[in-house]
Amino acid sequence: MTFFKMISKNLVKYIHQLEQKKYRKREGLFVAEGTKVVGDLLKYHRPKALFATDGWKAPVGISYTKVSEDELLRISFQQHPQQVIGLFPIPSQKATIDFYGKLVLALDGVQDPGNLGTIIRIADWFGIGTIICSEDTADAWNPKVIQATMGSIARVNIIYANLLDMLETLPPDFPVYGTLLDGENIYSQPLSEEGLIIMGNEGNGISDAVRAKINKRLLIPDFHHGETADSLNVAIATAITCSEFRRRQT
Amino acid sequence: MTFFKMISKNLVKYIHQLEQKKYRKREGLFVAEGTKVVGDLLKYHRPKALFATDGWKAPVGISYTKVSEDELLRISFQQHPQQVIGLFPIPSQKATIDFYGKLVLALDGVQDPGNLGTIIRIADWFGIGTIICSEDTADAWNPKVIQATMGSIARVNIIYANLLDMLETLPPDFPVYGTLLDGENIYSQPLSEEGLIIMGNEGNGISDAVRAKINKRLLIPDFHHGETADSLNVAIATAITCSEFRRRQT
Repeated sequence: MTFFKMISKNLVKYIHQLEQKKYRKREGLFVAEGTKVVGDLLKYHRPKALFATDGWKAPVGISYTKVSEDELLRISFQQHPQQVIGLFPIPSQKATIDFYGKLVLALDGVQDPGNLGTIIRIADWFGIGTIICSEDTADAWNPKVIQATMGSIARVNIIYANLLDMLETLPPDFPVYGTLLDGENIYSQPLSEEGLIIMGNEGNGISDAVRAKINKRLLIPDFHHGETADSLNVAIATAITCSEFRRRQT
Repeated sequence: MTFFKMISKNLVKYIHQLEQKKYRKREGLFVAEGTKVVGDLLKYHRPKALFATDGWKAPVGISYTKVSEDELLRISFQQHPQQVIGLFPIPSQKATIDFYGKLVLALDGVQDPGNLGTIIRIADWFGIGTIICSEDTADAWNPKVIQATMGSIARVNIIYANLLDMLETLPPDFPVYGTLLDGENIYSQPLSEEGLIIMGNEGNGISDAVRAKINKRLLIPDFHHGETADSLNVAIATAITCSEFRRRQT
């Protein structure tokens, strides 16, 4: 934990640089803002630095650098910052992924930080503890993603990996699900309690090489009644898919 | 259909004013951008004006004002406009709502334009043809909402009304659903083929007065296993709810 006597220009610059992936990587830090997101992180993660205004109710045993409203605004990435901003170490990636008996999400090139944050929040809701992101997926430690998770980033393991290499490590009969236009109706297909669920890029869906590894092809049917075929946003499709897997277990 | 010889400063100003609700209301027009959204609208709605660059493939019988890339950029609300921008009349509100045998969505104070647009897209996917918005819900003709619908705005009727007054017009036994923290598990409750599904505000949920009219209280269960209680984004909750209603009908 690092304390600061005052919010210098250099400190503001240092924090603002963390909006960029290369600086986050170099420093091993990410920025979280607001009582909900910082509060959730503090339950599981030790901050590198915390800045908060008088109004913030710090959890017991947590110390921080007190700042004015004006100083908070200078540090913040938000137009209306909420009481507290924290710098947290980016968690180290787990060397092994525990697939057995679990549902795991894999994202193949999700680009939009808002979508990625929402997907992390959905995973948290549905008790999915690990998300494996392809290397071309948006960076989960981007402040826009962190804020969109509404604190769920504290509870979900995010792992960046080459999806094809990762898929090679699975036993041949391990269930690998994906939603595809030529899949089988998700509402009537058997869905297992363990498995990998792959979601694709906003524009192009799942890449061809990864798609070839899917052995359980699912379809979320529409109810258009003959209107123009349309698509679902990737976060919405993730929510419907996860909901349907969990429904079978209730 | 109005044609323009050149994109004057006054025209740019006129279009940009349509970003504000009061000008949209005064002119009775909204702005749509891009090949997908404008293309979908043109199937059902006659434009007031269309501006497109050389690359745009106009549907048969549709004429438009040709503009340069630079002119398109000046008109547009987007950083990277896509080929075509249209001004369309705001559809007049239907005097009566057809509830019988149908699922209808009602939104009680949804504030975020992105959420509203996503909910309209979800309704379209699940064949829900009407959304009733409380008067304090975001304006569906806001350009941010229009773009977030990805064209679904062309196929879903949006009606602004006082929800309490509207609820008064329903027969006493008409199913009125809402997702509430003290509701019954949505996965195991009976769900009817007709009914009103109410979704609430991002921060405060469904207002007390509207909540009192819900006669089918639903809950989307989480799978946190004892972690901090969390919430789902309203668009995500709408998707899961609509999916579960439609599943019963497959």
